[in-house]
Amino acid sequence: MKARYYFDWAATAVPDHPLVNNPVREAALPFGNPSSRHTEGRIARDILEDARTRSAAVLGLPAKHLYFSSGGTEANALVLYSLLFKKNGGREAFLYSRAEHPSIRENAKILERLGKNVIPIGVERDGRVSPVSLERALEKTDNPRLAAIMGVNNETGAITDILSLTALLRKRPGRAVHFHCDMVQGIGKIPLDLGGWDVDSASLSAHKLGGPRGIGLLYLRKPIQVLYSGGGQEGGIRPGTENVAGAAALADCLERRARPEKLRADYAAAASRFKGLIEGLKSLSRCSLIPEDRKAEDPGFSPYILQAAFDGIPGEVMVRALDDAGFAVSTGSACSGDKKERPVLDAMGVDERKGLFGIRISQGWSTTEQDTEALLEAIKDILKIY
Amino acid sequence: MKARYYFDWAATAVPDHPLVNNPVREAALPFGNPSSRHTEGRIARDILEDARTRSAAVLGLPAKHLYFSSGGTEANALVLYSLLFKKNGGREAFLYSRAEHPSIRENAKILERLGKNVIPIGVERDGRVSPVSLERALEKTDNPRLAAIMGVNNETGAITDILSLTALLRKRPGRAVHFHCDMVQGIGKIPLDLGGWDVDSASLSAHKLGGPRGIGLLYLRKPIQVLYSGGGQEGGIRPGTENVAGAAALADCLERRARPEKLRADYAAAASRFKGLIEGLKSLSRCSLIPEDRKAEDPGFSPYILQAAFDGIPGEVMVRALDDAGFAVSTGSACSGDKKERPVLDAMGVDERKGLFGIRISQGWSTTEQDTEALLEAIKDILKIY
Repeated sequence: MKARYYFDWAATAVPDHPLVNNPVREAALPFGNPSSRHTEGRIARDILEDARTRSAAVLGLPAKHLYFSSGGTEANALVLYSLLFKKNGGREAFLYSRAEHPSIRENAKILERLGKNVIPIGVERDGRVSPVSLERALEKTDNPRLAAIMGVNNETGAITDILSLTALLRKRPGRAVHFHCDMVQGIGKIPLDLGGWDVDSASLSAHKLGGPRGIGLLYLRKPIQVLYSGGGQEGGIRPGTENVAGAAALADCLERRARPEKLRADYAAAASRFKGLIEGLKSLSRCSLIPEDRKAEDPGFSPYILQAAFDGIPGEVMVRALDDAGFAVSTGSACSGDKKERPVLDAMGVDERKGLFGIRISQGWSTTEQDTEALLEAIKDILKIY
Repeated sequence: MKARYYFDWAATAVPDHPLVNNPVREAALPFGNPSSRHTEGRIARDILEDARTRSAAVLGLPAKHLYFSSGGTEANALVLYSLLFKKNGGREAFLYSRAEHPSIRENAKILERLGKNVIPIGVERDGRVSPVSLERALEKTDNPRLAAIMGVNNETGAITDILSLTALLRKRPGRAVHFHCDMVQGIGKIPLDLGGWDVDSASLSAHKLGGPRGIGLLYLRKPIQVLYSGGGQEGGIRPGTENVAGAAALADCLERRARPEKLRADYAAAASRFKGLIEGLKSLSRCSLIPEDRKAEDPGFSPYILQAAFDGIPGEVMVRALDDAGFAVSTGSACSGDKKERPVLDAMGVDERKGLFGIRISQGWSTTEQDTEALLEAIKDILKIY
């Protein structure tokens, strides 16, 4: 091969950090800036576009509708802050479910502060958003522009029937409402056909799929006017030097986790493990699931996420006791780790006291039946003490 | 060690991607979500805070004033979009130099579109912002709130005397103006004392220092109200699951590149290589530097970035010809790769035609004197043909 001389260090440096210069991928991941027009840049661009194509193939979506972001939080924000540009005149409304992740819910507060009409959508007792709830929220505005409703709830695992909601929106007269779906806990976990859901946008995150932090994906059916601008990367949707290694890693994770056959096998195994755990928990007098009537095998809930409350033991205490016993569980979202409130459970009408007793148990593809059995035993031991 | 059972996959999955599960760092970089309250979370939090402390030590800044971001572009945007929250009432002004990187310049257009009073600051012929230029811009508003002026220009290497500008701002009567400094091309390159410059905020990017994409740093002297919200990470300044591996890598890069002694040695070597290159280029009748009077050794310019124009050869053609010969150079910023305009050169008063002849040559710590000599020969060969 002909010698190469690199004189574009201002675009990006020759990497000398192991996280970039990863021996496993050194050959496949050259360091160029994909926006540079030299050979190094073109090779990087090819890898980036290959990652997009591979992700699209797994997700069943057109590659040109996928935009790499720095993660799920940013992918959500990209859509939400498009609201700062008026589109339909008047007082345009942003509707979001009360069970959304903080990356939606907290930004709703900011948008309200900036003068937007922000309308929360109620959540059923099972943690899902029903067409009736959406309808009720829509009655509060004559100019709805954007609705954000997640696919799989990150605290309860409740799966909302997104297609029933988009169907409702599509049959309404008047201007189209943009439907955004946070799919961070759904992609690679739940068998689904995102393309068939008729959503306008959806977000996902690599680190929930075993990939690195700092890379996520935004699906956009049509380009939107985003707030942040810069170097025009990612079709102007997400500025900043493209995270080529991250994008390739995200595509790898999707190929490894989200292909239908593998996903269904993992799903069935996860459901089987949770069946045993849920039955065991239900047999404990001081334990109740949230929602209470969640069944041992319930297609309306993700078999990867479970919320349970233990009478007399605050969630934080249970988290600590389990941690001491070697088990990592959480209360709500890690993204609201420091707060005492449980807004998602509140939205479901869970009694405030019971909500504070809740813990989240979430599993993954390498969890074993021995693990869930050990967890159940550990919980029983803790209940004897507290 | 006691067995650990991980049941917090909803917070973050057990990684199975080589970019995360890097054998080199496996022991040092556990995968927990730093916001989680179990052992895995606490270990991740410790690594994150260690990265912050290590970065602070190299930069000579307090650790608690450093916030990890997804890169330089986002670090800049975090500061700029704080303008959407009114602070001093009235028509608050945003001043930015006309030579800024697109991540500032393009967002200035957005802010203007959103009703902000946006005032460009003129640039001297040498590419720097002088106190006189800043003063002139300040005369256009009675309510300046934020000024963004970069330390080292990414297209010309021009180094602005930031201290002279902050001194001017600090001695003005009335409300304090927030001074933001894009230091992406300065940190780890130019000997400097950021803490002594009296800036309110500054940005840097890991991939310019040999680190991975998707991680940057924002220095904030005082917390600001940022636009995006979410899970409250990074003191509420930057939401989204913390990129622990990225933060640790950024700290590694700073320790490797930006410690005063190493930095000065690299700087001297780079200056010596550029001295030869600049003298060689100046000896070519069809070559002129931008700015023209840049000297072979000029402390007012970064010895890592050089802009040169070749009479009769459009920059894009030269980039392609050099690429064919094995040399990677660029025209302007990779972040404006697709555009024909050269706004930074325009701002310096460079003739439009000459601007289009400009190319950027940028080097780094592993560039050798043989490399710069080979580049000069390649340029001579191309000049014979075109």
